[in-house]
Amino acid sequence: MAEQAYPPELSEERLISLVTQIKVVFSNNHTKLGLTTETEHSVLSQPVGVSCFPTKFPRSQFQQALDIQKIYNKLYCAVAEDDDFIYNAIKDLLPGDALANALWGIYKAAKKAESVQDISVGIFRSDYMLHVSDDSSDSLDSISNTTLKQVEFNSFSCAGATHANKVVDMHRYLTRRGVYNVEENRVDLSSLPINKNVDSLVSCLALAHSTYGPPRAKLAKETAVLFLVQPTNFNIADERPIEYGLWNRDRPVPAYRLGFGPDVLQYTRLTDSRELLFQPPWLESASPIEISVVYLRAGYETYEYDQTGLDARLRLENSTAIKCPSILGHITTFKKVQQALTKPGALERFLTDCEAAAIRETFVPVFPLDESAEGLQARELAGNPETADDYILKPSLEGGGHNVYGEDIPGFLASIPESKWSSYILMERIQPPILSNLLMSSVGIDGGEVVSELGVLGTCLWRRGPEGQCEMLHNSVGGWTFKTKHADIDEMSVVKGYGCFDTPYLVGSAE
Amino acid sequence: MAEQAYPPELSEERLISLVTQIKVVFSNNHTKLGLTTETEHSVLSQPVGVSCFPTKFPRSQFQQALDIQKIYNKLYCAVAEDDDFIYNAIKDLLPGDALANALWGIYKAAKKAESVQDISVGIFRSDYMLHVSDDSSDSLDSISNTTLKQVEFNSFSCAGATHANKVVDMHRYLTRRGVYNVEENRVDLSSLPINKNVDSLVSCLALAHSTYGPPRAKLAKETAVLFLVQPTNFNIADERPIEYGLWNRDRPVPAYRLGFGPDVLQYTRLTDSRELLFQPPWLESASPIEISVVYLRAGYETYEYDQTGLDARLRLENSTAIKCPSILGHITTFKKVQQALTKPGALERFLTDCEAAAIRETFVPVFPLDESAEGLQARELAGNPETADDYILKPSLEGGGHNVYGEDIPGFLASIPESKWSSYILMERIQPPILSNLLMSSVGIDGGEVVSELGVLGTCLWRRGPEGQCEMLHNSVGGWTFKTKHADIDEMSVVKGYGCFDTPYLVGSAE
Repeated sequence: MAEQAYPPELSEERLISLVTQIKVVFSNNHTKLGLTTETEHSVLSQPVGVSCFPTKFPRSQFQQALDIQKIYNKLYCAVAEDDDFIYNAIKDLLPGDALANALWGIYKAAKKAESVQDISVGIFRSDYMLHVSDDSSDSLDSISNTTLKQVEFNSFSCAGATHANKVVDMHRYLTRRGVYNVEENRVDLSSLPINKNVDSLVSCLALAHSTYGPPRAKLAKETAVLFLVQPTNFNIADERPIEYGLWNRDRPVPAYRLGFGPDVLQYTRLTDSRELLFQPPWLESASPIEISVVYLRAGYETYEYDQTGLDARLRLENSTAIKCPSILGHITTFKKVQQALTKPGALERFLTDCEAAAIRETFVPVFPLDESAEGLQARELAGNPETADDYILKPSLEGGGHNVYGEDIPGFLASIPESKWSSYILMERIQPPILSNLLMSSVGIDGGEVVSELGVLGTCLWRRGPEGQCEMLHNSVGGWTFKTKHADIDEMSVVKGYGCFDTPYLVGSAE
Repeated sequence: MAEQAYPPELSEERLISLVTQIKVVFSNNHTKLGLTTETEHSVLSQPVGVSCFPTKFPRSQFQQALDIQKIYNKLYCAVAEDDDFIYNAIKDLLPGDALANALWGIYKAAKKAESVQDISVGIFRSDYMLHVSDDSSDSLDSISNTTLKQVEFNSFSCAGATHANKVVDMHRYLTRRGVYNVEENRVDLSSLPINKNVDSLVSCLALAHSTYGPPRAKLAKETAVLFLVQPTNFNIADERPIEYGLWNRDRPVPAYRLGFGPDVLQYTRLTDSRELLFQPPWLESASPIEISVVYLRAGYETYEYDQTGLDARLRLENSTAIKCPSILGHITTFKKVQQALTKPGALERFLTDCEAAAIRETFVPVFPLDESAEGLQARELAGNPETADDYILKPSLEGGGHNVYGEDIPGFLASIPESKWSSYILMERIQPPILSNLLMSSVGIDGGEVVSELGVLGTCLWRRGPEGQCEMLHNSVGGWTFKTKHADIDEMSVVKGYGCFDTPYLVGSAE
């Protein structure tokens, strides 16, 4: 059957109406990004970027991404308990990469002090794009000839869950109202999957909180979750609803926030038995609060690790609080770990053959850029403008904005000392299908060719056994994020207004 | 026991922290008022005014107000079916008051056409203030020597439910975090009642929708609730969540919006059997939608009733749709009806003696300003600056902003023709206790003496019997709003930034 044009061609009047409706939803929910202006009594915020229409995505690959998330959770929990594997993956980074060096130093100090908490939490996000394996990328049904390929795996401070949740709610609401229907060309609500990200993340932290149990320190009367945040985080509406969700449970879970760094040293302390006590500045005279779970949404940038940052992170790591994530769990987010897992046999160290095969199917070739035989081969690929075009160069830890794409790679490598090369990985470029949409963000409203990225959230809780083995206490798919950008922009940056939150419009049958 | 100072004295640092936290909640919920700026892709909105601290209110009077709401619902449902009573209450208005005249004209035309729907919905709000009966108003515990007195009863387009709900959620959240606690002076969460306004209003409309049943017109395949709105309503965040709530139910109730007036004539029509069919402009080719419930949030201002407005309202009234409210239900919101109900024996026409007594307890003296003996006496009170100070002069229909207070009354009356006087009522001024708070709104952040107003929401569904009697199908307390303003401002205007949403901090025992 020939596919109908999508997005449907709306009359100008209907398009204006659609944009107006999106604005109204924005003024009624909290899909906000940062504060643009502030007066004494008011706070003005700016909507996060969104697609005006849901973007098509194949149902079977969507399902595949959800199905393998529990295996990815299991994999990364196991890696987070394997310091040998991690050390071997990142050891080349340690001399030159200040962040890797800081985190590994904290790990070594914490190991020496011996851990007093064998339970950890993981909130992960595995990002994928569709990859067109043949030359069908300009055909209308190109998404049906695609495979699911992993872009990266995030194990630290995964953002976007709330925005994604709210934007999906908005697209489903607009779909229910029939705004995408033109005559026989209709978008069915069942094609837009429900998203429960916020509930999932809240449930995961609440489970960790209850697993911690009652206060252990004599002084403390209650326990609470502590969010570690960057003091000037403008992505506030993505993070706060998780905190509100904890307070608003039928059995409220107290949740507090503290700036990473000096505030940790000032307002927390460790007891002799290393419970983490939090003394809120506004409750000086009251009992301190024992922290059950430390949820880190800060501490991922090099500048945060001055001596105060190092001391703060070590205090958290040394405490009895359950960490989300632990210091080793944090390091698994490095690209060098992602690359190490693509080596032959690496996955089988942690997974059954069958599980490893399912994960490996989502890998594209990733190479080190070191002086190994494989690395030297990758250096050749990267240095040659003709072959470099098929690759992306990624620093080991990137939050977007630091990647180097295709033909820019040879020049970039030439501009930095060769000794730094080994801290990068070289990843084969995914060739996504090109679709159409109208994107609305802080850079304006613009229609055209777009590409999408699916992120699957995993939530898990595990216990480290005496032999370092990993006992899963909870392993779940937490939800997903779906972002779309103009095809001619390399970077999926929500902050810069390029990446827009979106909802997959699932097509085709599930396999 | 001596009461502790309230609000507690917070350090400057804690006060700044409190204001910051309120702003953050604002940027994370939709307690917004209108759009201050708009760009192509963004919509900026301004937070609604709020009190920084909950304001004290006696628990027993709060409970009393909730307890009598079902009687008020019963009363106003019965009045809305009694055109004799209403006519007698408002007949003096008809010559001079264009709105009264328009609505009564529509009622007469609809009566002539004979009603095809005997079920109506009511969403009411009864507003109260505390009244200090003796001279104790300057003592700290003055709220314990107060009685509950009705300010007015609203039966049309009652606003504020959503704002109230969200602001209560915010104060409860801040209370849980302990931000109002200073040493032993603590605000307990159980003193701040839970508010479920949005759920209640949604449930009421959903019940009316399901009571309507399946489509009756052959052409229609589905039924839906239709919101009638003012095209440029800036109080959008108060109204929209009710619509979203209908869509988001486990069994979604379709809800659409239409501007009052020309849009009604353009996009709806009556079938021969007077079903109201709605043809959304974006679904020209699809089946029309049969309207089950008409929820009016527009049509309360005189200017809306040009010929188009008259025709539109009559079409709605003549249809089989269940109206919220019916045209007579609308007219019960007139102050002349409120005043007529204060006459001896009036309540007993509709209620048992016991019910009437409970209602009458909340009345302050209200006088007509007509040429009856009582009216002439009231004219004397109103004309004399010495006695006028104890009164408020209210036009029959006011949405705030048209009242005349105390010493301004004699001059005002002198400035208008005497023939207009009878469209006003004279109401004894309630003397509320004066408390302290810090208010934050579009006019700034300002501390000082404040007074509060409690509005209790009622939701009901009833069937008119063959004899005009009123059979209650649903009668419920829908929730409440609580607003606070500076004591030196007469007008409780949320729009102008004077009235701030608040949460009652219940004190004392329930009686």
